[in-house]
Amino acid sequence: MQPESNTWILTAHCESRLGTVDALTAYLRRTGNYITELNSFDDRLASRFFIRAVFRSSDSQFDEQAFREGFAEQAEPFAMEWSLTPVHHRTKVVIMVSKYDHCLNDLLYRYRTGHLPIEIPAIISNHPDLRGLADWHGIPYYHFPITPETKLKQENQVWDCIQQAGAELVVLARYMQVLSPAMCERLDGWAINIHHSLLPGFKGARPYHQAYEKGVKLVGATAHYVNNALDEGPIITQGVQAVDHAHYPEDLVAKGQDIECITLARAVSYHIEKRVFLHGNRTVVFPS
Amino acid sequence: MQPESNTWILTAHCESRLGTVDALTAYLRRTGNYITELNSFDDRLASRFFIRAVFRSSDSQFDEQAFREGFAEQAEPFAMEWSLTPVHHRTKVVIMVSKYDHCLNDLLYRYRTGHLPIEIPAIISNHPDLRGLADWHGIPYYHFPITPETKLKQENQVWDCIQQAGAELVVLARYMQVLSPAMCERLDGWAINIHHSLLPGFKGARPYHQAYEKGVKLVGATAHYVNNALDEGPIITQGVQAVDHAHYPEDLVAKGQDIECITLARAVSYHIEKRVFLHGNRTVVFPS
Amino acid sequence: MQPESNTWILTAHCESRLGTVDALTAYLRRTGNYITELNSFDDRLASRFFIRAVFRSSDSQFDEQAFREGFAEQAEPFAMEWSLTPVHHRTKVVIMVSKYDHCLNDLLYRYRTGHLPIEIPAIISNHPDLRGLADWHGIPYYHFPITPETKLKQENQVWDCIQQAGAELVVLARYMQVLSPAMCERLDGWAINIHHSLLPGFKGARPYHQAYEKGVKLVGATAHYVNNALDEGPIITQGVQAVDHAHYPEDLVAKGQDIECITLARAVSYHIEKRVFLHGNRTVVFPS
Amino acid sequence: MQPESNTWILTAHCESRLGTVDALTAYLRRTGNYITELNSFDDRLASRFFIRAVFRSSDSQFDEQAFREGFAEQAEPFAMEWSLTPVHHRTKVVIMVSKYDHCLNDLLYRYRTGHLPIEIPAIISNHPDLRGLADWHGIPYYHFPITPETKLKQENQVWDCIQQAGAELVVLARYMQVLSPAMCERLDGWAINIHHSLLPGFKGARPYHQAYEKGVKLVGATAHYVNNALDEGPIITQGVQAVDHAHYPEDLVAKGQDIECITLARAVSYHIEKRVFLHGNRTVVFPS
Repeated sequence: MQPESNTWILTAHCESRLGTVDALTAYLRRTGNYITELNSFDDRLASRFFIRAVFRSSDSQFDEQAFREGFAEQAEPFAMEWSLTPVHHRTKVVIMVSKYDHCLNDLLYRYRTGHLPIEIPAIISNHPDLRGLADWHGIPYYHFPITPETKLKQENQVWDCIQQAGAELVVLARYMQVLSPAMCERLDGWAINIHHSLLPGFKGARPYHQAYEKGVKLVGATAHYVNNALDEGPIITQGVQAVDHAHYPEDLVAKGQDIECITLARAVSYHIEKRVFLHGNRTVVFPS
Repeated sequence: MQPESNTWILTAHCESRLGTVDALTAYLRRTGNYITELNSFDDRLASRFFIRAVFRSSDSQFDEQAFREGFAEQAEPFAMEWSLTPVHHRTKVVIMVSKYDHCLNDLLYRYRTGHLPIEIPAIISNHPDLRGLADWHGIPYYHFPITPETKLKQENQVWDCIQQAGAELVVLARYMQVLSPAMCERLDGWAINIHHSLLPGFKGARPYHQAYEKGVKLVGATAHYVNNALDEGPIITQGVQAVDHAHYPEDLVAKGQDIECITLARAVSYHIEKRVFLHGNRTVVFPS
Repeated sequence: MQPESNTWILTAHCESRLGTVDALTAYLRRTGNYITELNSFDDRLASRFFIRAVFRSSDSQFDEQAFREGFAEQAEPFAMEWSLTPVHHRTKVVIMVSKYDHCLNDLLYRYRTGHLPIEIPAIISNHPDLRGLADWHGIPYYHFPITPETKLKQENQVWDCIQQAGAELVVLARYMQVLSPAMCERLDGWAINIHHSLLPGFKGARPYHQAYEKGVKLVGATAHYVNNALDEGPIITQGVQAVDHAHYPEDLVAKGQDIECITLARAVSYHIEKRVFLHGNRTVVFPS
Repeated sequence: MQPESNTWILTAHCESRLGTVDALTAYLRRTGNYITELNSFDDRLASRFFIRAVFRSSDSQFDEQAFREGFAEQAEPFAMEWSLTPVHHRTKVVIMVSKYDHCLNDLLYRYRTGHLPIEIPAIISNHPDLRGLADWHGIPYYHFPITPETKLKQENQVWDCIQQAGAELVVLARYMQVLSPAMCERLDGWAINIHHSLLPGFKGARPYHQAYEKGVKLVGATAHYVNNALDEGPIITQGVQAVDHAHYPEDLVAKGQDIECITLARAVSYHIEKRVFLHGNRTVVFPS
């Protein structure tokens, strides 16, 4: 069911302490906002508290500014990091690709049909190949070629483009370049990568070929946040697919693409619905 | 991680209304109880609110009676139905069986190893076959034979046994008798049945043979509450298993047993952890 | 790994009888053809034999005509129904749609990228909506509107189009019209339909709404051959997806679309690789 | 459906060469044996041929010795390694355990109910804990304690026991000792180990704790043959289970046990049905 228009998502996290839940719920009640969905989790090992509330304003003229100011006062004593997002907000997502188009095609389809409530102000690639796909969807396509010599310059071009597009999320939809540490730093925690293996197995290049050599009976995909450790960023979600001896490396590649698409799309969906919390090298994900 | 000993589960549901969440959370804060896990859901179509909180008392001498009295006052204006259960409570479960032993064996294993924190004061059967299994686990086994003529009498014996055992939950672990309407009434909402099909497909007898005739490529199992409609009670959880043309009906039966065991055990686990709410013909299940 | 170009698929089925396998394998050896993959199954309940062999010709000038004539002699005593197909054959598939585009989009993507080795000479719809998608892929789009009064006429238009396109397979990719018995007859056994439920549960219209009412915890999709019984044709493959109480009917619809796409694509792939055998109301499917 | 009593499984593998299939099928026909199930696979990268045939003798007095002699002549020119096994053969399986009992319990249940057609002449452990379970099933339990100093001696005791039991298969059902190279050598290719992770991720000790640290969203289990490389033996089958942030390491352990049981039992079943072929570090598994 489509959420009503005056519906908001409030998330917060902070150190574990008595009263954290109440800081939200009492405030929501006092301001006449009805909670339609609520999840909290207290990580006992990390002593960390996470909460996500969806609420409906009874007032058709919800005063966002006043709400924010009021809630900031509640959050302050707990040193909460928090966010407030209207349910109907369309997140600005910049997608980065190389030549593989299965993930891009899948994301564009979900975008086009409204299943992913996003805007895509830019598709960035180090190759020209997928321009046609972008054009057909009416999305600006930026081709920034890269060579070992021009890596720094190209990453600056990419970064300028991301900033000018006003990106709220960057998605690496099989972008086949290793990002520099500086670029990882810029994207730390707000860019999602899809790695075509069940990390931490088969890190690095050609994971399906590695999987073939090992004779595994399952292949998978991992969607994770970019951080400064290659293929080691915090995992958001993973998907899996059975395979057998008759799958040669090329077959594993093909077989894996469905699961890559679905896994990446699920991660993006979780992220834009504010279901994912980052803490250290782990995530808390309140499922839909 | 084992929950600490002064940890409790509080659940409630009532009609949707502003302040329902706060009724719990404010009370918990005021009484110095720390929420470690919280889920709420508001069913917009049914206008019904459901909440489950796990909390830790900071007071090593938690006064249950005082807590109950205090919370009853909060719950009363909302006409909440609610429950309070210590996390370490071992639910008294009476298991009913016939001749199939796979579900019983599985439940007993989880009981024996402590994975299911339950007590089993009685195993009831209309056949003597599984007595040895009960004996080995040191559980009283009640054999109440049944014939069409003695059905009423047998059900009364069963009912007496359930009551004398102080059962908090009855599990029909492949009990192959159709319960009378009167018996269904008695067990309505607090007995779990495992049906060996993906209901509502293949209701009734010999579902695997029906599945074979249809040539399905998936078989499954459904754990549901008993109510007055045979095989139509509210579904708690379902499991599924791929099959193919080479599975004759007997193979489907064998193949289906793993999924029956797992599905039933999951339903029992959800129930005793107070994750399941019944409302009409549907359930709300906050997953673990 | 791409099969080499001189590779063929030979399938056959007939009544169970000694020598059926040998009829193929001896002939293949005698003609110098190397078997790279072989599956046979004997259905004891139906007394029916099914076999699928993939072989590589050692002769770069494989004489198809001579092979066919020679094999026909072997097959004749067993009254085998058989087929011979080059592995690189691109099956001519006519796709029928209405307004939902998720399955079409998915099939077109697999077609465009070569994952499904098919040609699509025509997309037929009773609505104009999906013309743009067809155009972008350079595929002729035939819009044949339908009303209760024009049903017969429209089906004749459709049928003419299918025939003129030289279709070897028809795929109903969420074509939302009930076919007349005459049309079912024409398509019997060589048209694949995707039904958006785990048949035989939730036959007919709006299965996701039915599923919501029942409170099921799994939804799924069924790809089956069209025959003269609505939603009762032989099942090729089925897929499944977990859902919960928070999924309103519209959410189930959205959630189900991924599994519909994957299930339909898998069925088409099995069919064109000659992995599916029809016998009565059941299928034998040798998996990839 | 129970296979009829005069049914046999014939497997073979050898280098790829024209006529390999025919070597079996022609011989089976000539000797009047009816093939009910047949799978072959040719590994193009390894140039290796694998075949498994199930056949029914039309002669109620099947002469095994004569069959073997006759087939040996066919197999010799191809240097085939082959095996012949009656379908009703009950494989002698020696099970090794330490203290964890979930896999043992599961195997014993399948043994007791006939789902796994095996005999268990011995259960061997380095701890006394699971004797009661063995006793209840009437199976001899051998307790061979082990210390770093007595490792060699203990392994010799184990080996003597395995030999005296006439074991055809050894199953390490969570046997928590690293085998010496000499012991690995003895068991190479005919002992199945269950590793409680999705190998090659999380090799070695405490994989669930490793998985927790990485924040993975899926855990799994791998059944593989023992060889001389610890946790690197050829994989037979793998299973997987979704987890989330709320699963502490101990929860992952518990959650993983279901999937360990099912994965190990499936591997044992594949092995005793002669569905698994070993070649180098990979397996070919013809599924049931």
